[in-house]
Amino acid sequence: MSVSSFWEPYSELQAELESVTHLMAKQIRLRNKEIETVLLESIYRGGKMIRPAYTLLFSKFGDNQQVERTLALSAAVELLHTATLIHDDIVDDSPLRRGVPSLQAQYGKDVAVYAGDYLFTVCFRLLSNYADPTEQVEVNTRGMERILMGELDQMYLRYNKNISIRSYLTQVSGKTAQLFALACYSGALNGGQTEKFSRNSYYIGSHIGMAFQIIDDILDYSQTSIVFGKPVLEDVRQGIYTAPLIFALQEKNARLKELIDKEAQLTESDAKEIQQLVIRLNGLEKAKQLAEKYTQKAMKRIEQLPDQKEKEQIKKITLSLLERHI
Amino acid sequence: MSVSSFWEPYSELQAELESVTHLMAKQIRLRNKEIETVLLESIYRGGKMIRPAYTLLFSKFGDNQQVERTLALSAAVELLHTATLIHDDIVDDSPLRRGVPSLQAQYGKDVAVYAGDYLFTVCFRLLSNYADPTEQVEVNTRGMERILMGELDQMYLRYNKNISIRSYLTQVSGKTAQLFALACYSGALNGGQTEKFSRNSYYIGSHIGMAFQIIDDILDYSQTSIVFGKPVLEDVRQGIYTAPLIFALQEKNARLKELIDKEAQLTESDAKEIQQLVIRLNGLEKAKQLAEKYTQKAMKRIEQLPDQKEKEQIKKITLSLLERHI
Repeated sequence: MSVSSFWEPYSELQAELESVTHLMAKQIRLRNKEIETVLLESIYRGGKMIRPAYTLLFSKFGDNQQVERTLALSAAVELLHTATLIHDDIVDDSPLRRGVPSLQAQYGKDVAVYAGDYLFTVCFRLLSNYADPTEQVEVNTRGMERILMGELDQMYLRYNKNISIRSYLTQVSGKTAQLFALACYSGALNGGQTEKFSRNSYYIGSHIGMAFQIIDDILDYSQTSIVFGKPVLEDVRQGIYTAPLIFALQEKNARLKELIDKEAQLTESDAKEIQQLVIRLNGLEKAKQLAEKYTQKAMKRIEQLPDQKEKEQIKKITLSLLERHI
Repeated sequence: MSVSSFWEPYSELQAELESVTHLMAKQIRLRNKEIETVLLESIYRGGKMIRPAYTLLFSKFGDNQQVERTLALSAAVELLHTATLIHDDIVDDSPLRRGVPSLQAQYGKDVAVYAGDYLFTVCFRLLSNYADPTEQVEVNTRGMERILMGELDQMYLRYNKNISIRSYLTQVSGKTAQLFALACYSGALNGGQTEKFSRNSYYIGSHIGMAFQIIDDILDYSQTSIVFGKPVLEDVRQGIYTAPLIFALQEKNARLKELIDKEAQLTESDAKEIQQLVIRLNGLEKAKQLAEKYTQKAMKRIEQLPDQKEKEQIKKITLSLLERHI
């Protein structure tokens, strides 16, 4: 699913996302040209640009249509996302990101620490240049604080074999759902809509983010490394236990327990056995139901949006996003 | 030189710095109470609070005296400083910071990455809550960008034995002088003074920062680890070559060259030999002259400040800061 193929049905949005990409790239100016090139490449190669797409779409409900500001807010959301990914890769020692070597794997954690910091800074500079700062800087910083709390929670729950679905959901709510919630909320505020509308947008984003992360975690158990771009069950080896495994662990299977207890010593064949056990113990099935629950919650709130073109687009995009091959 | 003893002669300033400390601490709110405690401890144990002291002092020249905002801007400067220190320690693998184990040594790089990010975020939240955001957020983000460029430069010049004094000064200008410049400039803007006054304040801060860092680098060669709180010549082992060594290397001493070529393999006794060679080859003496040059530049500009109590305080503080035992 590349940027272009996913957004092809929405040509206006696609063009705007290209402007967002250019705006992001235009902000990157470093004396060190090697790092500058790396950052620019990572922006142009990019991700799916899902979060800025939501910011763009939710901006269109109000009557306050300032194109420049809308692009800046969308770019800020994606920069925040990219910065957290770079720092996540340091913490996880990830060899790959989006199918290519991660910045820290290629240039070392030193570069990755400062490169991530630099993108955070660029994000706040953009907000201060273009946006109504009091409101948007505050919204963005509060969102970022919640994201960092989620990351810290996740670290502290590593290798905890008694982790509950509730704790898992708290983590996901911080590390993934917040950024989706921020993307939608920031767009809604920008459009100049009512507080009630903005709050609804926030919850739509949050529910989408929950479903999105649960599906990501499901894919980790249902796909091979080649398709997915990262090693199978790398998370488990690092002590990060997600919904499919947590549900499977509730079945008290002795062999599964034994395998998980190997922690960082898990071999590739252990990983495959865990994968099979999780499927056999209905972990995947239950995780899918959980994701479905959040998708439904999101769709129900999307229904409450005013009837206009963007409502239909948000519906379609959300459904195709949450119907990745699971 | 503890916070209290250094600021004792300036009781009003000392009281304000205490308020800044409390304001910083009040901003730290994490679900994870262990990390929260670590951050609070590091704030209360604190550094010398030199940078916020300059922000407070430069705020007092104009007619725009909003106490809350002044405290917030000062806290933001110190939070930015603390966050960069935490991330620097990850990059340097520093075992110690301010004489006690660094956050990354104690809790791992994972916690340190996110804890630093969190403090950056808190800094920008503070700016957006209290300050005139367009201007102050922009000033702070531009300052932070320059700091990060300095850090990236430093990494790329590691183990470069042909590093010139000019390159060294460019690095120092980014990684240290910027934050001092920001501290003074942000205070001056806050006071509501003229653009000319603010620009002069910026250069005062920049010159002070240059002298401060050169002196720090001199102390690395002239003090023992016990007094200074970090291992002797740790920088050299990590390929960071500073003024005293760069001047000494210009003398083309064969033995010094041989020792430096050992890079990360330097032993404790090699380090002591380097220290003696740097002194014998006049590296320390020349570095002192360089620091003195920046001190003089700073003092010349401080003389141009309007005659009021704070001018005298800035003079005294700057001189005692730049006359640390070298």
